[in-house]
Amino acid sequence: MKTYRVAVLAGDGIGPELVRVTIPILRLASYLYGFELIFEEALVGGTAIEATGKALPPETLEICKRSQAIFFGAVGGKQWESLPPEKQPERAALLPLRKTFSLFANLRPVTCYPELIEASPLKPEIASGVDLLIVRELTGGIYFGQPKGRVLTEQGERAIDTLVYDTSEIERVATVAFEIALRRKKSLTLIDKANVLESSLLWRKTVKEIAKNYPEVELKFMYVDNAAMQLVLKPTQFDVLLCENLFGDILSDEAAGIAGSLGLLASASIGSTKFGLYEPAGGSAPDIAGKGIANPIAQILSGALMFEYSFQEEEAAQAIKDAIRDVLKDGYRTMDIAKGSSTYCTTEEFAEKVAQK
Amino acid sequence: MKTYRVAVLAGDGIGPELVRVTIPILRLASYLYGFELIFEEALVGGTAIEATGKALPPETLEICKRSQAIFFGAVGGKQWESLPPEKQPERAALLPLRKTFSLFANLRPVTCYPELIEASPLKPEIASGVDLLIVRELTGGIYFGQPKGRVLTEQGERAIDTLVYDTSEIERVATVAFEIALRRKKSLTLIDKANVLESSLLWRKTVKEIAKNYPEVELKFMYVDNAAMQLVLKPTQFDVLLCENLFGDILSDEAAGIAGSLGLLASASIGSTKFGLYEPAGGSAPDIAGKGIANPIAQILSGALMFEYSFQEEEAAQAIKDAIRDVLKDGYRTMDIAKGSSTYCTTEEFAEKVAQK
Ligand SMILES: CC(C)[C@H](C(=O)O)[C@@H](O)C(=O)O
Ligand SMILES: CC(C)[C@H](C(=O)O)[C@@H](O)C(=O)O
Repeated sequence: MKTYRVAVLAGDGIGPELVRVTIPILRLASYLYGFELIFEEALVGGTAIEATGKALPPETLEICKRSQAIFFGAVGGKQWESLPPEKQPERAALLPLRKTFSLFANLRPVTCYPELIEASPLKPEIASGVDLLIVRELTGGIYFGQPKGRVLTEQGERAIDTLVYDTSEIERVATVAFEIALRRKKSLTLIDKANVLESSLLWRKTVKEIAKNYPEVELKFMYVDNAAMQLVLKPTQFDVLLCENLFGDILSDEAAGIAGSLGLLASASIGSTKFGLYEPAGGSAPDIAGKGIANPIAQILSGALMFEYSFQEEEAAQAIKDAIRDVLKDGYRTMDIAKGSSTYCTTEEFAEKVAQK
Repeated sequence: MKTYRVAVLAGDGIGPELVRVTIPILRLASYLYGFELIFEEALVGGTAIEATGKALPPETLEICKRSQAIFFGAVGGKQWESLPPEKQPERAALLPLRKTFSLFANLRPVTCYPELIEASPLKPEIASGVDLLIVRELTGGIYFGQPKGRVLTEQGERAIDTLVYDTSEIERVATVAFEIALRRKKSLTLIDKANVLESSLLWRKTVKEIAKNYPEVELKFMYVDNAAMQLVLKPTQFDVLLCENLFGDILSDEAAGIAGSLGLLASASIGSTKFGLYEPAGGSAPDIAGKGIANPIAQILSGALMFEYSFQEEEAAQAIKDAIRDVLKDGYRTMDIAKGSSTYCTTEEFAEKVAQK
């Protein structure tokens, strides 16, 4: 029997409760589709800081290294906000994880299911049919560029961040985006700010080169400011959006808003091997942690993405997605998306219903 | 009689037609409220490139310098897209204008008028009551930071853009934002990415200092990705948003989308004197230029902002805003926002109706 090892990094806030209710669903799917999952838990984030002094302890990295995928919850919370920025759970755990495993492509699918159209803040006629995927470059750009820091000047301070991209960094993530576009509606929009940024010019040039290998895919260009507007005016115009790191960060949260809740959106961070990190797009939401009301959909869908991208278990992935839609069709909703005639249920109840399907 | 000199830079695309229909409205308001306007036209953008080889000719700068305000249309268009990026109308005209006159604060008010609630892509219950103002830093950050460029490497190219801010640059725009917040709902949200950017940390620190002078104003902080989401989920939570240059660019276009059309949004770019540049937030829209269908509201409102910020003629400004709302109440709409029972009218007809009011 095929066996896959998964490092489980539940983290802080709602992370642990989401991961806890999701694991049985993944296990059940693995029984049904004939493969085995070995889960190994590891500390990460604020919880890891409390226990070991480090947001990403060496033992956690070891466990990740001997796994084929990382199943991630969320990190961060009020308790650690007073730490220096570079020690805070998000920056000290998530960014090094992405970098260590060279997870340069972050995939964020955003779909407005008919069952959830009412959750969108957009009018139904605008939200209906939204089915896009953001491919965000994840290990370069202004997140990691040097120099980065602050210096004293005569009048005060000067702060510097550097946005750097090399041709090769753009090529590899663009290739991922084109491959995905091929399997979807064959339309790819590069999001940039080529009227202002030199790095955007290099993106345009490099992506045009890669596009030659994919003549079936239509390539378009859009400035990031315009894209931020078009996403609310006419989101159905997009299929695959390719973005540098920071633009992808901003637009994918905006797209999540369009779907109605961060609790709906899963994400996969992949590199050039099958290894990947799978996490909900939302954060640790400390304000609702422990209340059993968090929406587990994004966490469960992240499991489906793991099946798809790291294990090539497409049928199991599809079964999970179908189960979620069935539960939604039956009218069950967690609090964030509950409206009108829906039946309110807790994190755990929702997950159990998905498992039943 | 008080007299104000205005440099009129109509520019390209829909710029000239918008400016042409707006000037009579401004003149009429000046008669009614007892001041005089002297308009002096000057070339800018692609039109200026055709005539003089330069997007911002020295004569244009001279005319601007002897004026108290610049009334700007729009620049750019397909014809000039093949020019090298630094020669394109937007970059070669708009950015140097902002920099030359040190127009460091760009104000973009976004209001969802009840009359126009149907134009918003958001559900009416979410759009209703939106009344926010984005204060965008306009002469610093990644738009102007050095080094900026591309170098050859062994594997290809490397592109670099630099995001730089000095304490003093942040202080002056923050002061503008707090002054505005004082006259509004006394709530200011600093938008940054302090979990990743060093420059954001300097913004937070500096803005906290300035806040001490404004104890009546409530200061909040929000990451830019979250803000992009909150703007669609719950835009009424915002009053004044203070943003660095690029974040302001992205969020203000998104906010424009929420209002329903870029054709609705005016902007004022001001510095430490009364001198200012007033322009619609939209671009030159070459695809609809010359058809007489462009929405003149943003251009007319830009005139109102000019009255307010450069001339302190608040009554005349208010009269123009009221006239626009009256025309909208009467059901007249240009094509971009026409829906259902509204009466469609051209750019010119709409402007005439505003003048009549
Ligand atoms: C927590 C933060 C550093 C992170 C990012 O900006 O990448 C988050 O917003 C995300 O999108 O995963
Ligand atoms: C045209 C472009 C350089 C400009 C900018 O990015 O500032 C525009 O988008 C704006 O917002 O005025």
